[in-house]
Amino acid sequence: MTMRLAPPKGMADVLPAEMALREWAQAVILNTYTDYGFTRIGTPAIEDAENLAGSEGGDNLNLIYQILKRGDKLAEAVGSGAQLWDLGLRYDLTLPLARFYAANREALPSPFKCVQIDRAYRAERPQKGRMRELTQCDIDILGDDSINAEAELIAVTAEALGGLGFTGFTARINDRRALRGTLLKFGFEEGQIASACVSFDKFDKIGAGGVADELSARNMPESAVAAFRAFMDAGDFSIGRVRALIGENAELDAVSGLIGELNAIGGGAWSAEYDLSLVRGQGYYTGMVFEMAYPGYGGSIAGGGRYDGMIGKFTGTPTPAVGFSIGFERIIDILREQNARPAQSKPKLAMLHEPGAPFREIFAEIQPLRGAYAVTAMPKPEKMGKLYKKLEREGYAFVRLPGEPVKPV
Amino acid sequence: MTMRLAPPKGMADVLPAEMALREWAQAVILNTYTDYGFTRIGTPAIEDAENLAGSEGGDNLNLIYQILKRGDKLAEAVGSGAQLWDLGLRYDLTLPLARFYAANREALPSPFKCVQIDRAYRAERPQKGRMRELTQCDIDILGDDSINAEAELIAVTAEALGGLGFTGFTARINDRRALRGTLLKFGFEEGQIASACVSFDKFDKIGAGGVADELSARNMPESAVAAFRAFMDAGDFSIGRVRALIGENAELDAVSGLIGELNAIGGGAWSAEYDLSLVRGQGYYTGMVFEMAYPGYGGSIAGGGRYDGMIGKFTGTPTPAVGFSIGFERIIDILREQNARPAQSKPKLAMLHEPGAPFREIFAEIQPLRGAYAVTAMPKPEKMGKLYKKLEREGYAFVRLPGEPVKPV
Repeated sequence: MTMRLAPPKGMADVLPAEMALREWAQAVILNTYTDYGFTRIGTPAIEDAENLAGSEGGDNLNLIYQILKRGDKLAEAVGSGAQLWDLGLRYDLTLPLARFYAANREALPSPFKCVQIDRAYRAERPQKGRMRELTQCDIDILGDDSINAEAELIAVTAEALGGLGFTGFTARINDRRALRGTLLKFGFEEGQIASACVSFDKFDKIGAGGVADELSARNMPESAVAAFRAFMDAGDFSIGRVRALIGENAELDAVSGLIGELNAIGGGAWSAEYDLSLVRGQGYYTGMVFEMAYPGYGGSIAGGGRYDGMIGKFTGTPTPAVGFSIGFERIIDILREQNARPAQSKPKLAMLHEPGAPFREIFAEIQPLRGAYAVTAMPKPEKMGKLYKKLEREGYAFVRLPGEPVKPV
Repeated sequence: MTMRLAPPKGMADVLPAEMALREWAQAVILNTYTDYGFTRIGTPAIEDAENLAGSEGGDNLNLIYQILKRGDKLAEAVGSGAQLWDLGLRYDLTLPLARFYAANREALPSPFKCVQIDRAYRAERPQKGRMRELTQCDIDILGDDSINAEAELIAVTAEALGGLGFTGFTARINDRRALRGTLLKFGFEEGQIASACVSFDKFDKIGAGGVADELSARNMPESAVAAFRAFMDAGDFSIGRVRALIGENAELDAVSGLIGELNAIGGGAWSAEYDLSLVRGQGYYTGMVFEMAYPGYGGSIAGGGRYDGMIGKFTGTPTPAVGFSIGFERIIDILREQNARPAQSKPKLAMLHEPGAPFREIFAEIQPLRGAYAVTAMPKPEKMGKLYKKLEREGYAFVRLPGEPVKPV
C-alpha cells in the first residue's frame, strides 16, 4: 500500500505560521461582523443532491464533489444506471443558509442578520487564490427588502477588510434588472438573457469579440449581437451610459443613491462605483449584485448580491435575502504576499527539565509561567551547544533552564 | 424540484445560541492547548482513497463518505467495474496529521506538539452525542518516545475539560502490549490477537458471553475462549490481576508510574486508573491507549493513544507519535444538558432609526456604540407597541430610539 504525502489536488496543509495568520484574519472579520449585530450560525458541509441540483448555482453545479450512495442504494443505482450519488459537498454557503433559514425561521429574529465562516468545495482548476477546498466569510440579511440591507453589507465588509489592512478597494455594483433591460434594448429576447449573461460574465477574460462569438454561435439575433458588441467595444459601462440607453429607472436610481451613501462612508479610503459589466455567475441573484475589486489583484476579493427567490423555493413564500461573501483564500493569498504578520500572541517559552524528572513536577513548574507564555516542556539535552540555534529556529523567544530564571533565547 | 428542509441524516444546523456555546467551548480548549506550547495546524477534510484504505482505522473504514471520480475517470471506472471513488472524507484527524507531518517534517520542530480542531465524517447510525459530521479537538506529540508525552496529553486534556466545568472524570489507561500478553497467556495465537481485540472492544455492550460467542464463532481455541471468558466473568481488570497473569512487565510498570503521576496532578478533581478492558477500536495503536470516562455518560468523552507506526507508512522511518482527541459533539451534548451558558459577550443593542434615514447617518451613529454593544440597526416600526416584546424575545438587552440615550429593554 503506497501512501501519498501530498494533500488532494487543489487542497492545502496549513502550517503553524499560516494558521496563525488565518486565525488572526478570521477573528478580525468575525469581530467586525458581530459588532454590527450579525450572529454566527453553522450548517453542515454536506447537502442533499436534490437541493444542490435545484440551487441555480450556475457553473458551480458542474464543480460539485459528489458523494457515493451506500449499501443497497448504491447497488440499485449501479444496477439500474440511476444517479450514483445522493449527497454532495456544498459549493458555497448561500444554499445551506437558505435551507437553514427555511427550516428554523420560527426560532429566528426578523430581519435575521447572520455570519457564517466555513468551508466550501469546488472541483475546479486550481490557480492562485483559487482552491478546491476554500473558506468563505459570509454575512447575510434575511427578511429585509430595503436597500439599507445592501448598504450595510457593503459598508461592514469594507470595514472588515480595513481591519485587515486593506485599503483602496472598490465596491463594483450593478443591478441584474438594469442588465436585463439593457440586453432587451439591444434586441435579445427574454429567453436569451440568462445565456447572454453567462457569456458577458467572461468579458474580462475573453473580451468583446469572445463574448460576441459565443452569442453568435448560439444563434442569437445578429443585430442584437452587433449592437451589444459595439457597446462592449466602446467600454463605457457607467450608469450615465445605461440611463441613456434604457431611460430613467427606479433600480438605477437606487443603485445611484447607494453608491453616494457608500462613497460618503468610504471617505476616500475605499470607493463604490457602478459597473454594468459586473454580472456574477450564480443564477440565483434577483436584484443588485456587487463585488470588491482590489488594485493589482485580478478577480474580486468579495462578492454578493440579492437573492429574493431562493428561500421561497424551500418555503413557498418569497423572503427578501441579500448576502456578501469574502473570499478568504484570496485574502490570505494577498496578506501572505504582503508578508502580513498577525498581532503577537503569547511568546513561546522552552521550559527545560532534567531528563527523567517526575511529570508532576514538570507540570507544576509550567503552571505559574503559562499566563505570560506558551510553555513547551522539553528535557535538557545532553549537549547544550546546539540547543539555542534549535530554539531560535523554532521560534522560541524565551528559555528556562532547570533552577534558573526565564531569559531571552 | 422539491427542496429538502432538513440537513442530511446525522448532521445538524447550529442555531445562534448553540453556536455561541460551541465557540466558547472551542476557545477554552484551544487556549488551554496553546498555553502548553501546542501549535494549531490545518489539514483538508478530504484525503486520497488509498491513504484512507491504508490507515488501519478499524471499523471506521466502513463508515467513509466516498467521493465519486469525475469525468473520464468515472466513465472508465463504470465501464470496467473498478472502484468508483478516488477521494473520501476523513473519519478522524489522525491520518491527516500523519500525512501532514510526513510531508512537512523538514519545516517542523522536533518534537512537534500540535493541536487540530476540525471536522471529520462517519456514516454511522446517528445517536445521542454521535453525529455523522463531527468536530474533534486533537492534540498530538510527534517525535517523543518518552512517557512524558502520554502524561502531558492526558494532564492538559484534563485541564481543558476542567476549564469547561467538567469534574470527576476518569482517565482509563491500558497498554496494547499488556493486552496482547494477556490474550497470549490465555492461549490465543499471535494471528488471532487483533480479531480477539475487536470483539473484546464490545465487552461493554455485549458482555462476556457475547465476546466469547464471537470468538468461538471464529473458531478460536476452545480452551483460550474458556479461560478468557472466566477472566471477563470475574470482572477484575486491574493492573494487579494482569501482573498476576503475565508477571512483571516493563509496560505495566510504565502505566503504573503514569497513573501515579496523573493522580497526583488530578488532586482528587479527576483521577486515573488502569483498565485492561479498554481496547480502543483503531488498529493503528501500538502502545498505551486511553480514554476519559465521564460519570453518568455512557461512552468516552475523549480517546487516544500511541501510534508509533503510522508516520513510518508515509516516510519509511518509524516516528514516535501519540495523540488525544476530545469528542467535541459529546462535550457539547453534556454542556447542553447542563444548561451551560458561555461567558457573556457584548450585550445586544437595537439601534432604531427613522425609516428612510440616509444610511451614512445610520452607520455614523453605530460607530461610537459598537465598542460596548453588538449593534443591530433597524427602522423604527410604525406601531411601537409590539416592539419591546419582540426585542426581548430576540435577546436584545438595550435599545436606542432616535435622538434618545441608550436604555435597557
